[in-house]
Amino acid sequence: MERISIIENFFPKNDPALLQKAEDNLPTLLETELVPVSFAAPTLAPGETVRWDFGTHCVGYLTLQLSFSGSHPDAPALLRLRFAERLEEFMEDASAYHGWISKGWIAEELLHVDRLPFTVSLPRRYAFRYLECTVIDTSRKFRLVVDRVWVRAVSAVDPTRVTPLERTDPKLCRIDAVAIKTLAECMQEVFEDGPKRDRRLWLGDFRLQALVNGVTFRNFALVKRCLYLFAGTRFPDDRIAACLFTDGEPAADDTWFSDYALLYPVALAEYLALTDDSEALRDLYDVAVAQLDRALAMTDADGIVNADFVDAAFIDWSPGLEKTASTMGVLLYALPYGRVLAQKNGDASRDAIYAEALERGRAAAKTRFWDPAKGVFVSNGQISPASQIWMTLGGVLPEASAKGALCRLLSEPSETPLVAPYLHHYALEALLSVGKTDAAMEHLLSYWGGMVDRGADTFWEIWNPEAPDASPYGGTIVNSYCHAWSCTPSYFLRNHLL
Amino acid sequence: MERISIIENFFPKNDPALLQKAEDNLPTLLETELVPVSFAAPTLAPGETVRWDFGTHCVGYLTLQLSFSGSHPDAPALLRLRFAERLEEFMEDASAYHGWISKGWIAEELLHVDRLPFTVSLPRRYAFRYLECTVIDTSRKFRLVVDRVWVRAVSAVDPTRVTPLERTDPKLCRIDAVAIKTLAECMQEVFEDGPKRDRRLWLGDFRLQALVNGVTFRNFALVKRCLYLFAGTRFPDDRIAACLFTDGEPAADDTWFSDYALLYPVALAEYLALTDDSEALRDLYDVAVAQLDRALAMTDADGIVNADFVDAAFIDWSPGLEKTASTMGVLLYALPYGRVLAQKNGDASRDAIYAEALERGRAAAKTRFWDPAKGVFVSNGQISPASQIWMTLGGVLPEASAKGALCRLLSEPSETPLVAPYLHHYALEALLSVGKTDAAMEHLLSYWGGMVDRGADTFWEIWNPEAPDASPYGGTIVNSYCHAWSCTPSYFLRNHLL
Repeated sequence: MERISIIENFFPKNDPALLQKAEDNLPTLLETELVPVSFAAPTLAPGETVRWDFGTHCVGYLTLQLSFSGSHPDAPALLRLRFAERLEEFMEDASAYHGWISKGWIAEELLHVDRLPFTVSLPRRYAFRYLECTVIDTSRKFRLVVDRVWVRAVSAVDPTRVTPLERTDPKLCRIDAVAIKTLAECMQEVFEDGPKRDRRLWLGDFRLQALVNGVTFRNFALVKRCLYLFAGTRFPDDRIAACLFTDGEPAADDTWFSDYALLYPVALAEYLALTDDSEALRDLYDVAVAQLDRALAMTDADGIVNADFVDAAFIDWSPGLEKTASTMGVLLYALPYGRVLAQKNGDASRDAIYAEALERGRAAAKTRFWDPAKGVFVSNGQISPASQIWMTLGGVLPEASAKGALCRLLSEPSETPLVAPYLHHYALEALLSVGKTDAAMEHLLSYWGGMVDRGADTFWEIWNPEAPDASPYGGTIVNSYCHAWSCTPSYFLRNHLL
Repeated sequence: MERISIIENFFPKNDPALLQKAEDNLPTLLETELVPVSFAAPTLAPGETVRWDFGTHCVGYLTLQLSFSGSHPDAPALLRLRFAERLEEFMEDASAYHGWISKGWIAEELLHVDRLPFTVSLPRRYAFRYLECTVIDTSRKFRLVVDRVWVRAVSAVDPTRVTPLERTDPKLCRIDAVAIKTLAECMQEVFEDGPKRDRRLWLGDFRLQALVNGVTFRNFALVKRCLYLFAGTRFPDDRIAACLFTDGEPAADDTWFSDYALLYPVALAEYLALTDDSEALRDLYDVAVAQLDRALAMTDADGIVNADFVDAAFIDWSPGLEKTASTMGVLLYALPYGRVLAQKNGDASRDAIYAEALERGRAAAKTRFWDPAKGVFVSNGQISPASQIWMTLGGVLPEASAKGALCRLLSEPSETPLVAPYLHHYALEALLSVGKTDAAMEHLLSYWGGMVDRGADTFWEIWNPEAPDASPYGGTIVNSYCHAWSCTPSYFLRNHLL
C-alpha cells in the first residue's frame, strides 16, 4: 500500500498574512510531570532490562536520573531505550522491519552515559505509555542505578477538563474517555495526526479532530490556527495540501489528496457554525471555494469526477479499492458546505453554481453508479462498502433507498473492507444520515469497542478486527496507536447517540 | 588478561588544598578546526555509506551540517556514525565484541535527525582520524545531504610548536613526529593515557609522558597539576592510586598497582630536576616517600618484596609473567629517586634508610634471582625479558654483567615476551643504562618503526609484531591506537640517541 507523492521542484505558495494569524493562535502547551505507576530504583547489571508503565499514554520528554552502585564508573554506561504505546510492541524486533516508511520512526534510542551520577534528558519528543531500558554494558566495576524516571508530558489541552460521560453503558463511557484522551494527545501546536510518528497536520484527520473538539475541548483557537495554516502554505495553484509540516517554518507537503482538499470547505463551514468568526470567513473563503471549484473543473461531461481526480483521492488504506464512486460522493458531500459558505459570504452566483452542480452531480452519480437490479452502488464494476458510504453521504438516493445498500454492505464480508478508522467514521456518519441509529451504535461498540477490549488507552491508526496485525507500512512496529482520525466516537456519543 | 580491582566501600582520601593547586594549573585547551582532506558534499540514499579521512588523528568534537535533496523531509533521518583511529577498525563488527571491558567504548553513535536542514554537534568527545556515516534510513521522498563536516580538535599543546628532528634518518624523524603527536593528543586537562577510551590519569603512563614532555612541550604546569592530583586524592592509607578519574570531581580509582605507586617519587624527582619547584617538594614529599616506605614495609626477611606487593604489580600485559624479580627491580629503580627527594628535603634519616635498603635489596635480589650458571635472572623458576630489564634497571649487577643477560633475552623468543609499549620503554632504558646504544636504537627502529610501517599516525596501546591483532581486552575494536605510554621514542631520540 505504498503511497508516495513526489513533485520535483515543489515550492509552496506562502501567504505571510495568513501564516501570521496562524502564529497568533499558537497555543501554550500545558506541561504535566508523569512518573511510572510503580517504581523502585533498580540496580542494573549489563544485559538487564527493566520496563516501566506510566499508566497512561504520554506525549513528551523523558528524563532519567542515573547513578551507580559499586566502584567509581570507569567506562561509559551504554543503554538502549525503547518506547511503546502498547506493550505488544516490545515483542517486535526492530531489525526485522523493512517496510516502506522510515526505520527512523522506530522509537528507540542508544545512549552513552560517560559520567555518573548524571541526569539524561532526551531532546526528542516521544509518544508512549511503556518504557524499556536495557543496560547493554557498563564495566564490571559498577552497576547502573536508575534513581528516577519522569516525563514532561505536553498537550494543548487538559483531558480531565472534559466532563466524563455518566449514567450510560460503562463500555460507552470507556470508549468516550479513550477517544478524548486520543484527541488530547494529538492536540499539540497543531492538530497532529499521531504524536508517535508524523506529528504533521493532515487535512482529513484535522476535520475529524475539529468535530470532536467542538463537543469536548472547544479549543477553537487551535482550529482557527490550523485553518489558517492550510490556507497559508498551499500548492502554487491554490490547492490545499494533504498535509503540512509545522515543525519549523510551516510548509505544504507536495502531496495532494483530492478528497481531503474537499474537506477544507467542510471544516471551515463547521468552524464558522460554532464561532461565527467573520474574519476567518473573509480571509479563508477564496481558498475554501477554490477547492470545490477545482473539483468541479475536474469532472467529465456527465459531471462525474475524472480519473486524475480519483487517482489523487485517499478514501481508505484498503488495497484494490475502486474509488470513483467514493470520490464523487465526497464532492457531493462537500458541495452543501460550499453553499453555506457562499451564502454567508453573500456570493449568490457561486451558491447557484454549487446548487446546480449538486443536483446534476447527484443525478449523474445515480445513473453511473446505482445498480437498481442489485440494489447497490457499483464503482467501475466493484461493489464496496466505501462506495455505499460516500454515495449515501453524497445524498445520491433518497434516505430510504440508500439505507438498504449501506446496511447490507457494512454487515457482509467484502473483498475491499473498511480498513482505517477514518472510513469507519464516515460509515457512522452515513448510518446516522439515513436514520440507522441502532446500527451506528452497534458499529461503534464493535469497532472501537474492539480496540478497548484489547486494552487500548488511545485509539489506533489502523484496526482491522479480521487482521489485528495489519500495517499499511509493512510492519506494525511503525504503526501509531494514538491516532487522531480514530477519536470520533466522542463526537457521535455526545452529539447524536446519547 | 582480565584485571579488575574492586574494593567495597572505597572512599578516597581527598586533600582540598592539594586539589586546589591542581585546579590552579588546569590548562586552557587549544582548539583547532579540522576538516576531511577531501570532501564533496555527498547526497546519501538509505543504505549508503561515506567515509572521511581527516588526514591526522583528532581528539575533539564532531559537527555535521546536514540538509536534504528532494521533497521536504517527512521522516527522521537515521544515521550511524563510526569513528576509527585506524582504517582497519571499520572492518570490525561491533556486535561481535564480547570482551571484558565495556561495549560502551566502541566508538559509534546512532542519531535521529528530525528536522532538516540541521546542524548536529555531538556532545561526546571522540578520538579518531576516520569517520564513517551510514544513512540507515530517510523516507523515500528525500535524501540526506552532508554539506559540511568538521571537528573542533582539542589539546593542551600545539604539536607544531616542537621543532621537528632534522638531518637524521627519515624513519627516525617520522617515529619522533608520531610520538610527539601521540603525546599531544593525550595532553588534555590531564595527561590522559589514551583519548579514545579511559581518558584517565594513569600513573605509569604519566611518568613516561612527563619524561617526553620534558624534552618537547615543556608544559610543566600540566605535570605539576597531575602530581598534585595524584597526591590530592589517594587511598585512605596514603597509597597513590594506579589511576584517577578527573572528569568531574577528581577521585582515585580503587585500583593500586604497586609498581606504578613507586614511580610517583620518580616522577616527582624528575619534575623537580627540571623546575626546582620548592613548593611542590614541600607539598608532595610526604606522599611521595610514603610510597617507598610502604614498599619497604612489604618486603620479607631478606628484603625482597612480598607476594601481596608482587600481586599488585602491573609490569606488563604478558599472560603468565612471573613478576617478583620485576617488581623488586622497580623498587630498586625507585629508591635512588627517593634518596634525591630526601636529600633535597633535608631528610637525612630517610636518605640513610633508603641507601641501606638499596644496598641490602640489591644484594638480596642478586642472591634470589641471579643464576650465575645460566647467566640470567630467574624469577621463581621463570626466565623472562621483564625480569632482566628490571633487575638491570635496579642495578643489581654491575653494568657489564647485566648486559649479556639483557641483550640475550631481548633478542631470543620467549614464552613471556614484552607485550605493551610501556615495558618496551623500560627495555630501552635498560639497554641504555648498560651502554647498549646500538641495540637500543635497533629496538626502537624495529618496534616503534613497525607501527610506523603499518601506517601509524600515533602510537598504539598494544603492539606485538608476532600477533598484530592482539588485544588485552578480548577484541581489538576497543583497543586504543593513540596511547601515551608508547610515546617515549622522542625522549630517547632527543635525550640520548641523537
